[in-house]
Amino acid sequence: MTETAHEGQLAQSRPPRAGKALGPRYQAAVLGFPDYWYPGVLSRHLGKKPVAIKLLGQNLVFFRAHGRAYALRDLCAHRGMPLSYGTCLAEGTVTCGYHGWTYDLATGKCVAALTDGPDSPAVGRYAVKSYPVEERGGIVFVYMGDGNPPPLEEDVPEEAIRPDWTQQVVVSVWRGNWRAAVENGYDAGHAPYVHRNSLRWRTAGSLQPAWATAVGSEVVGPYLRQKRGKPGPPEADYPVIGRWPRHSWLRRFLAEVGKKPGRQRPYPNEFRLPCMIHNKYFYYTHIRWAVPVDEHTTRNFQVYAGHYQGTRSLAFSLHYWLWHRWVFHMQFNGQDEWIVERLDPEAPERLYRPDVSIRDLRRYVESHARTGDAASSNGHGSGSPE
Amino acid sequence: MTETAHEGQLAQSRPPRAGKALGPRYQAAVLGFPDYWYPGVLSRHLGKKPVAIKLLGQNLVFFRAHGRAYALRDLCAHRGMPLSYGTCLAEGTVTCGYHGWTYDLATGKCVAALTDGPDSPAVGRYAVKSYPVEERGGIVFVYMGDGNPPPLEEDVPEEAIRPDWTQQVVVSVWRGNWRAAVENGYDAGHAPYVHRNSLRWRTAGSLQPAWATAVGSEVVGPYLRQKRGKPGPPEADYPVIGRWPRHSWLRRFLAEVGKKPGRQRPYPNEFRLPCMIHNKYFYYTHIRWAVPVDEHTTRNFQVYAGHYQGTRSLAFSLHYWLWHRWVFHMQFNGQDEWIVERLDPEAPERLYRPDVSIRDLRRYVESHARTGDAASSNGHGSGSPE
Amino acid sequence: MTETAHEGQLAQSRPPRAGKALGPRYQAAVLGFPDYWYPGVLSRHLGKKPVAIKLLGQNLVFFRAHGRAYALRDLCAHRGMPLSYGTCLAEGTVTCGYHGWTYDLATGKCVAALTDGPDSPAVGRYAVKSYPVEERGGIVFVYMGDGNPPPLEEDVPEEAIRPDWTQQVVVSVWRGNWRAAVENGYDAGHAPYVHRNSLRWRTAGSLQPAWATAVGSEVVGPYLRQKRGKPGPPEADYPVIGRWPRHSWLRRFLAEVGKKPGRQRPYPNEFRLPCMIHNKYFYYTHIRWAVPVDEHTTRNFQVYAGHYQGTRSLAFSLHYWLWHRWVFHMQFNGQDEWIVERLDPEAPERLYRPDVSIRDLRRYVESHARTGDAASSNGHGSGSPE
Repeated sequence: MTETAHEGQLAQSRPPRAGKALGPRYQAAVLGFPDYWYPGVLSRHLGKKPVAIKLLGQNLVFFRAHGRAYALRDLCAHRGMPLSYGTCLAEGTVTCGYHGWTYDLATGKCVAALTDGPDSPAVGRYAVKSYPVEERGGIVFVYMGDGNPPPLEEDVPEEAIRPDWTQQVVVSVWRGNWRAAVENGYDAGHAPYVHRNSLRWRTAGSLQPAWATAVGSEVVGPYLRQKRGKPGPPEADYPVIGRWPRHSWLRRFLAEVGKKPGRQRPYPNEFRLPCMIHNKYFYYTHIRWAVPVDEHTTRNFQVYAGHYQGTRSLAFSLHYWLWHRWVFHMQFNGQDEWIVERLDPEAPERLYRPDVSIRDLRRYVESHARTGDAASSNGHGSGSPE
Repeated sequence: MTETAHEGQLAQSRPPRAGKALGPRYQAAVLGFPDYWYPGVLSRHLGKKPVAIKLLGQNLVFFRAHGRAYALRDLCAHRGMPLSYGTCLAEGTVTCGYHGWTYDLATGKCVAALTDGPDSPAVGRYAVKSYPVEERGGIVFVYMGDGNPPPLEEDVPEEAIRPDWTQQVVVSVWRGNWRAAVENGYDAGHAPYVHRNSLRWRTAGSLQPAWATAVGSEVVGPYLRQKRGKPGPPEADYPVIGRWPRHSWLRRFLAEVGKKPGRQRPYPNEFRLPCMIHNKYFYYTHIRWAVPVDEHTTRNFQVYAGHYQGTRSLAFSLHYWLWHRWVFHMQFNGQDEWIVERLDPEAPERLYRPDVSIRDLRRYVESHARTGDAASSNGHGSGSPE
Repeated sequence: MTETAHEGQLAQSRPPRAGKALGPRYQAAVLGFPDYWYPGVLSRHLGKKPVAIKLLGQNLVFFRAHGRAYALRDLCAHRGMPLSYGTCLAEGTVTCGYHGWTYDLATGKCVAALTDGPDSPAVGRYAVKSYPVEERGGIVFVYMGDGNPPPLEEDVPEEAIRPDWTQQVVVSVWRGNWRAAVENGYDAGHAPYVHRNSLRWRTAGSLQPAWATAVGSEVVGPYLRQKRGKPGPPEADYPVIGRWPRHSWLRRFLAEVGKKPGRQRPYPNEFRLPCMIHNKYFYYTHIRWAVPVDEHTTRNFQVYAGHYQGTRSLAFSLHYWLWHRWVFHMQFNGQDEWIVERLDPEAPERLYRPDVSIRDLRRYVESHARTGDAASSNGHGSGSPE
C-alpha cells in the first residue's frame, strides 16, 4: 500500500493560516489513541518489585511472576488502594495492602479476600482490569484498548522485537504532551538548526545542508514517510543574517579532507501510529515511541536496533554503549527534549514550507488512527491522508 | 438508647454495588459537621504565641490570655490581614499588624483602632467571629457551629476530660479526608491484615485471628458499637494463597508457651459523632478524633486515658511515654496513616462482608449527624440508623 | 487642574459597608491598565543576554542591540517557542532556537527563516509583536497599550528621567496583586502602625503622631494628592489598650533634646496612574511603581531621585547606597511587602475613617484610568473622581 500525499502542496503557495487547526480526533487525543500496543516498561526494570507507571492517563502496575510480565490497573477493586503497594504472598498473585484482597495477575480476578476468610463471596466475583502484555526485545508491551488486541507485529516494527536483531533501549521522560514530542520527530525543519551542533552531526562525516527540503509524504505500509526534494547547499547567504551556517574550523577541516558536503540521509524520516518515529540508517534502525503519560508528560522509548547476531551483536552493543547511547540517545535527543519542554502548547501557529511535514502528519493521524472497532480487523487503518 | 442495626445484612447476600454511594449529608460533609465540639489545639502547644490552624476549612487562631484559651477567626474585619500576625498590647486583646485594629479575645469585638485615635467609630461597631472554647484534659476544644454550643460533656467522653483520669495526647496530620480517616478506624476488615505485623500486636500476648467477623452495629448511647461474631481461627487455608497468616517464629513461640490463640478484644470498636473512634481496653481507653482540616487533610488527636490518680497516674504516664506512644500512637496508627494517604478518594468501591461496618457507619452518620437547629436541644441526634 | 474630592465625606458618618465594592473598571483591571508606559527592566540588568519577564500578564523579552533596548512578545510566531531562548546571529536580530526564524528587534518582522532557505516566503510575511520602549534614568520603559504611545513624559515624572536629576533605582517582586501594593502605598492609616519601628522613622528626627488624619484627596495635575487634617498627638490614651505608642528610650530621648513631636511630612502622599506612589521629601523624591506581573505578583520599581549634578550627585548617590537603600528601600518597604503578601484578597472589608484615602484612590482610578482610545489624545484622563 503506497499513497502519495500532498506533494507540491506548498507550491500552490496558499498562505498558511494562523491558529492551530488540528483535526477533531487528533485534537481530542490529548492522552493518545488507546487501541494500539505501547511500550510500557523495560524488561530490565521489571524484577521482583512491582513497577507503577502512568500510561495514557491511567495508573498501571507491572509485575513479573514465573518469569512472565503482567499488567493490572493500579487500583484495588475494593476501596481504592493502589495495588503497587501490595505484597506477593503466592507467585502469580498480588495481595492488596489494605484488606488482603488478592488478585490473579493473569486474569485480574480476585482469588482471595484474606480478611474475609477462605469462603469470602468476593472471590471470583470481583476483579481488577488486567491488560494484555507481551515481552519482546527487552520491552514489556501493553495493550490498553477495547476488544482483543491485534498481533503485536501489527504495531511494532520487527527490528524492535525479532530475536535475530540486536536491540538496545533507553527510556526518558519529557515534560510535554506526546503530540509535541511526535511532531518534533517528524518535523523536517528543525534538524538543520537544532541539531547542527550536536556531536552526532559534527562527526557524521558530512556537512549537513543549510536546510532540508520537504516536498510531502507518502504512505508506505504502516509508515508515513517523508519525501525529500533537492537538498539545500551546505551554506547560503541570507539578507540580514549574512552567510549561514558559520562553519567551525572542525567542519571546514572535514570539508577540506574530502567529505562530500550537503549529503542527506538516504533513508527518510518515518512516522508510525500511534506515536512512533522510525529512521533507518546504514547499519542500524532508530525507533522512538513518544508514549503519552498524562497531558503534560511523555515517556520516550528509544530503540537502537541492528540486524546482528553472535559476535557482531556484541560489537554492535559495545558500539552503542560506548558511543551511540551518549551521542544520539542522550545529547541529540536531549536537544529535542529541551525544545519540547519549552514550547507553549497554546500558542497560535504560522506554518512555513518545511511544515508540510507537520501538516502531512496531522492529516495522516486524523484519518488513519485506529478506532476500537477496527482494532482486530485492520492493523494500520485505511483511507488516504486527505 | 440501644438499637440493633443491620445484623445479618450480608446474610441476604445481595451483591454489593460498585460505585461509592454515600448519603447526601455525609457526601456533602467534606469539611465535617460543624455543630459539634472539636479538639483544636493541645494545651501544651498554646503559650504566649498565637497558634493559627485550619479547622473545618476555616482559618482560626488560638490565643492564651490570663491563663485562658480563646479562638478567633484568623482574619481582621478591616482589610483581610490574618490576626495571627498581630501583637498583644494589652492582655486579653490582639492588635492587627496592619492598622492596629484591636480585638477583645473573649468577644471578638473591636475595642480600639489605634491609627484612628481613641474616638474611632470602628470601636464597638465591628468584630471578628469568636468561637466558644473549653480547655480540658490538655486539649483546647472549640465549637464552630451555629447557635449556642451544647455542654462539652455532650460531645466529649469523660475519659478525655475528667481530672480524676490521666490523659496523654498526641497530634498528627494525615494527608487525606477526615472520612477516610474515620472509616479506616471503624473498618472491621483491615486490622488483621494491616496491623498484623505491628509491634503492638506482636507483643499483645495473643495470636490474632486470621479474620474479624463483623455482624453489624448497635447504637449504645452516643456510640455506634460494632458487634462481633465468632472470631476466625488464628490461621486458615486459602485456595490460591495456601496457609495464612504465616506465623513468625516469635508468634509460634508465643503460641507454644500457652497464649490462647484467636482471642478478640473484649470491648469492640466504637464510633462517635462527629469524627471519633473510641476503644476501651483492659486498663486504658484510646480515643482518636479525625478532625477535618481541609478537603485533603485531617488532624488526628489521639488520647490515651486511664482512670488513675497520684502515683498510679505517674506510672500510667511513664508507661505511655516509654511504650504506648511509640508502639500504638506512632507505629500502629502510622500504619493507618500510610493507608489513608494512599487511597484514591474517587475510586469506585465494591464492598465485602466485613464492610458491614463501613455501611453501618455511613448510615448512622447520615441519620444521626447533628444539625445546627438541634444542637442545643439534642446532644447526639435521634432516629435510627435506617 | 485641581479638584477637591470627598473632603468631609466621613463627617456624614455613613456607616462604611462590609464587602469589597470596587468600580467595574478597577475591579476588572486585575492585570493593570495597559495604555500607559511602565518600567520594564533596569538598564543595568539588560546586557548582551535577553531578559524575559512577565508584565501585565504577558511574556515579554527585552534585548539590547547597538546600545539600544528593544522589547518583543516572548513567543515565536511559528510554533510557540519563547524567543528568550534564541540566539543573536546578527546584531539587532534574534533567531529562534527551534527553526531559526529570525526577527528584527525594532519591528518584530521576520527577516529570515534559516531552515527554509534565503527565499523563504515567511520572510516579511510574519512578525512577533514588538513594543515601544524608551530608556531613561536607568530604566527601560515599555508601552503595551493599543495605538500609538503618548510621550513618555506624560506618564513618567521628570524626576525619574531627567538627566539633570540623579536617580537610583531598585526592583523587588512582591507576591500580591498590584492593587494591594498600590492601595498600601496610598493608605493613610497603616504608616503610624506598620512603620513606627522602622529605622527610617526612628531616626527621622521626629516623633511621629499616633495617627494620621486623612480628610480627603485633591487632583493636582496628574496626581491624586492626599489632604491632611490636623495631625494627631505623639501619643494618646486608648480605653482598653491604655497609652500608645509606648515610646522607647530612644524616642523619649529625641523628644527631650527638643525635637518637635507630632510633626507631619510637609509634602503629602500622591498617587499617579497607572500604579505609582509619589512622595516629595526635603531633598529627594521617592517614586514607587507597583507594576502588575500576574494576578498574584507585582514588580516594584523604587526610584530615589534628587535634583543634583556633579559632585553633589555623587554625594547623593553615596548617601543612597550607604543609608537610604537599606533603610528605606529595603527595610521600610519590606514592611509593606510583608503586609501585602499576607492579605487575603478575597476578604470582605469594613472601612474606617483613614480609609477615605482608599476610597478616594479607588474612585479616582475608576474615573480617570486611560482607555486605549484616549491614549494619544489625553495623557492623564479627564473627568472628576466622582
